[in-house]
Amino acid sequence: MKSGMFITFEGPEGAGKSTIINMAAQRIENTLLTREPGGIDIAEQIRRVILDRDNTAMDPRTEALLYAAARRQHLIERVSPALKEGKIVLCDRFVDSSLAYQGHARGLGIEEVWTINKFAIEQMMPDLTIYYDIEPQIGLQRINNNKGREINRLDLEDLEFHQKVREGYHILLDRFPNRMVKIDASRTIEKVLEETIEIVEKKLSEK
Amino acid sequence: MKSGMFITFEGPEGAGKSTIINMAAQRIENTLLTREPGGIDIAEQIRRVILDRDNTAMDPRTEALLYAAARRQHLIERVSPALKEGKIVLCDRFVDSSLAYQGHARGLGIEEVWTINKFAIEQMMPDLTIYYDIEPQIGLQRINNNKGREINRLDLEDLEFHQKVREGYHILLDRFPNRMVKIDASRTIEKVLEETIEIVEKKLSEK
Repeated sequence: MKSGMFITFEGPEGAGKSTIINMAAQRIENTLLTREPGGIDIAEQIRRVILDRDNTAMDPRTEALLYAAARRQHLIERVSPALKEGKIVLCDRFVDSSLAYQGHARGLGIEEVWTINKFAIEQMMPDLTIYYDIEPQIGLQRINNNKGREINRLDLEDLEFHQKVREGYHILLDRFPNRMVKIDASRTIEKVLEETIEIVEKKLSEK
Repeated sequence: MKSGMFITFEGPEGAGKSTIINMAAQRIENTLLTREPGGIDIAEQIRRVILDRDNTAMDPRTEALLYAAARRQHLIERVSPALKEGKIVLCDRFVDSSLAYQGHARGLGIEEVWTINKFAIEQMMPDLTIYYDIEPQIGLQRINNNKGREINRLDLEDLEFHQKVREGYHILLDRFPNRMVKIDASRTIEKVLEETIEIVEKKLSEK
């Protein structure tokens, strides 16, 4: 059925992920760059329910199910058709974000969150997932430099959370060694971009 | 934690289910009668996404995940607090409707739909589920008598679908023999009501 390639990109904020993907998309031919909900109407509606600030009482499992629902619809309406056309689909965050953030860092359990995402994704797992690894302290520093401010108390609470997120991603690297590749994102953006392109091109050449 | 009792009611349209539950709720003390989404704001928002007629492209798995999300929120906000107060919660349709309709009749697979619903429900399974069994032909006839019209071609397509729904419920009866009880709903409403009350009172006496 599918003739393209499905590549997802993962990592914490401050790893430079989105910048890198944008640059990579310009260097690789025949790509579709996307992220959930990606302008898909049903997925956008679902995301609005999740992000509605009046919904303070939303249960974490309700939220996880809604993310899985939005993921499914984005996959069916955008990713899958592009793959059938032979495109290289580059997706900024996918199932591993749910597993690392909600499953591990928020404590729902990776296995539990995995079961509902398997239902959402079926056989449409990424062919390759690039994970940008970075010490949470360094990632946080980068974000703060962008905002032109010092690290504060809230950031330190964040720090603990982001350490859990990183731990989650490391568990996933062990669990999915064939699909996931880790890149050291503490280096310059040029180096990280070169390694990203190298890995993608190697994968494309194996097709 | 929970001191009340959670009872769900299942069956096709035309089995008289809703009428019976309303009558039973008046005869049993300390009940909360509810159904999803039950006025729960987040669950109502989710239901609006499902029922939005502009969303013709909604994938069946997206829909199943959304139903599970609405179920979770209704359970957390309405059912669980009532159970903690010691109430007898009577819920018109619950997880078995998803399993019979989407899992079996729509072909997603009972096991598949069950995995996402287990995630949604956790340990909060019903203590008792009463299933109103009726030949689809008879159920359909009843609905049409209410509407004052004859069976038409669309109804006959419905008939095939409702036969699948019934088949689904029968699979569930085999799978959950301790939780599910079947009542023959082809008899008079008085007889069905009496048997319903009898089964509920027996269950309450075992507490």
